[in-house]
Amino acid sequence: MTLAAQLFDALREASLDPPGVSRASYGAGERAAHAIIRAAAEQLGLQCRVDPVGTLFMTLPGADRSLSPVMIGSHLDAVTHGGNFDGAAGVVMGLALVAQLQAERRVLPRDLTILGIRAEEMCWFPVNYIGSRAAFGLLPPGVPDSARRSDSGKTLAEHMLEEGFDPDFIRQGKSSLDPARIHAFIEPHIEQGPVLVGAGLPCAIVTGIRGILRHPICRAHGAWNHAGAVPRGFRQDAVLATAQLAARLDALWDRTEASGGDLVLTMGEFWTPAAMHAPTKVPGEVAFSLDIRSEQDAVLDAVVSVMRDMAEEALTQRRVTLDYGEGMRAAPALMHPRLRAALRAGAAQAGVPCMEMTSGAGHDCASFVLKGVPSAMLFIRNANGSHNPDEAMALEDFGAALRVLVGAIEAIAAN
Amino acid sequence: MTLAAQLFDALREASLDPPGVSRASYGAGERAAHAIIRAAAEQLGLQCRVDPVGTLFMTLPGADRSLSPVMIGSHLDAVTHGGNFDGAAGVVMGLALVAQLQAERRVLPRDLTILGIRAEEMCWFPVNYIGSRAAFGLLPPGVPDSARRSDSGKTLAEHMLEEGFDPDFIRQGKSSLDPARIHAFIEPHIEQGPVLVGAGLPCAIVTGIRGILRHPICRAHGAWNHAGAVPRGFRQDAVLATAQLAARLDALWDRTEASGGDLVLTMGEFWTPAAMHAPTKVPGEVAFSLDIRSEQDAVLDAVVSVMRDMAEEALTQRRVTLDYGEGMRAAPALMHPRLRAALRAGAAQAGVPCMEMTSGAGHDCASFVLKGVPSAMLFIRNANGSHNPDEAMALEDFGAALRVLVGAIEAIAAN
Repeated sequence: MTLAAQLFDALREASLDPPGVSRASYGAGERAAHAIIRAAAEQLGLQCRVDPVGTLFMTLPGADRSLSPVMIGSHLDAVTHGGNFDGAAGVVMGLALVAQLQAERRVLPRDLTILGIRAEEMCWFPVNYIGSRAAFGLLPPGVPDSARRSDSGKTLAEHMLEEGFDPDFIRQGKSSLDPARIHAFIEPHIEQGPVLVGAGLPCAIVTGIRGILRHPICRAHGAWNHAGAVPRGFRQDAVLATAQLAARLDALWDRTEASGGDLVLTMGEFWTPAAMHAPTKVPGEVAFSLDIRSEQDAVLDAVVSVMRDMAEEALTQRRVTLDYGEGMRAAPALMHPRLRAALRAGAAQAGVPCMEMTSGAGHDCASFVLKGVPSAMLFIRNANGSHNPDEAMALEDFGAALRVLVGAIEAIAAN
Repeated sequence: MTLAAQLFDALREASLDPPGVSRASYGAGERAAHAIIRAAAEQLGLQCRVDPVGTLFMTLPGADRSLSPVMIGSHLDAVTHGGNFDGAAGVVMGLALVAQLQAERRVLPRDLTILGIRAEEMCWFPVNYIGSRAAFGLLPPGVPDSARRSDSGKTLAEHMLEEGFDPDFIRQGKSSLDPARIHAFIEPHIEQGPVLVGAGLPCAIVTGIRGILRHPICRAHGAWNHAGAVPRGFRQDAVLATAQLAARLDALWDRTEASGGDLVLTMGEFWTPAAMHAPTKVPGEVAFSLDIRSEQDAVLDAVVSVMRDMAEEALTQRRVTLDYGEGMRAAPALMHPRLRAALRAGAAQAGVPCMEMTSGAGHDCASFVLKGVPSAMLFIRNANGSHNPDEAMALEDFGAALRVLVGAIEAIAAN
């Protein structure tokens, strides 16, 4: 625990950007964080190497070195003026676990590799999970030359070269991670929502990362008209059509929760255009966004079905067109039952009260699940959300989660 | 009909402001219109006088001059770049009726006074029915000095003085119209909605002017949050709360129409603030407007009740505050059954196909109803709505409405 406290202090100091910290993907803050973590790993005697996209591998040898390793880790970049723990806590916990095993002179049956992953935060490059997908060869080959960093305007390739890495590795679809050679992946991470604070629990075992259905730019098109003089049958009211869509999705949310399903849905933008609207005009246009997440693909299917039905109904009953624009859909990533059971048993053994919960935010762990690697996540209680300088994880909670991991690691490493 | 065509041409020419016409309340366009109308009335031999607030009275003497007169008219101002017929058609029809009666050598049992009313359009001064309320002594005494014209920034009092009228008349609460001395008031007016075009009918007899319940600046206050990581129970989603209000009001609309009630409702503005909102944030705030109109006060009461219930429900179930801000409510103005019957009979006699309908927009006629004057309105078919340069009334439809009035005038003037 002294190690963890020292590392968090060093990380904060190296990337301070008041208020909070900034660790740009393939930039100075991320570089400093990798240097601090690598120095600590070498201090612990871990075998360190870096792949061509900058992923840091820090390995504690196990009894049988021919066996595929257990991997533990997370990302070391952070959003602008963000908190110190989002991402970093998972890497620090890997090193703290190593220190604990060493202190107890325990040797695992297989290697334990701590991962420091690059470029997870989408605020820098507008692409999901760059570091973990690049290591798996999952990133589209054009990304290094098309994705530009929000602060510098320079491409991912330029920033990779500046940091001494190789964009050709991505362009040529190479990989440094072989899913067949990973026994399990564990990503500890702060919870980015209020659930653990609300439940009064220090940590949680994640059941899955929600899939996402996102339509960021939708439009309802009706007609502008006089609010008083135009009767209902002549109206094409874009607000009422969009509000009805919202109410229908909200009702689906009720039904989904009543039947034990998982869903969160957000219409984060909903606006009549300021240049046109007025209290005395029937609104002819609404712009809105949809962000729908669920651990169950079938629930996302049900949402798609409500969206389709409502588009038809709005057109026939209100003569309003609902245009959902371009959409993206990412499948849910379910955590592995064996690893979840191992973590539950570890929590019981360590006497740490724990719950199971879904992850609403995306994580590198999703890349591992996508490639078929048995994976799990451990959430640490954290106040005030993440991606802001008020992010607040107590070291006591970090310690409780570490004890869960210490209790579970043998079972995780077992065949 | 030649008279009407000439008057419409003269009015258009005198107030041309492409696209369309502009006739500012207590300004040049309105002044020119009054001059044209007064000249035509004098040509017809009518007795003309103007009251201290500028109302133009043009009287055709009847058989018994001691009886209270029938009044017919409307306003002569027009919105900026508006159409030529909104308001003016009612005054021109009064003169056309006089010409017709004179041509047929008919003398009514009582005087017939054509009214040219001032300042009806709210785009100039932000006050309802200035001209007709001033004539009835209904305008609050502070209005001449507090209301400023949108184009000039000068007060109503300044503009009245510039036109030769007397703001003290309003300040002292004087009146030039005595409801006990008006036998009936008839306001012919173009329809400002699409009903008659849709029905394929030249004119309509109005059943009433809808009352209005208006809350132009409402706010829903919740909390901004992460769209993925915050579960439903922790959300305070301002969009879903406002959308549910819209859906409940829409459902009330269904029920009201099913039971034969009258209602139109408009949430003309509905917007999440651009500086804060994002597709991946739970929306913490919505600004919206409510404009609700009905011919039945009980329906407006039902709307108020839904608004109150929803505010409570949003607070307890979503922890979202619905703040409706300042509201105004104007009672419905019902047209007089005897006058409606007279107009129906006049239409039947003239062979003009006609319907009955409610008026969603407000009119000077509401001031007469408020003062207890038996009143009626006759709508003339008009394409493309009003308050815009595309407003389009055909002279044939004006002629049809005039024939209805010619057929009805004896009954209207009867005791």
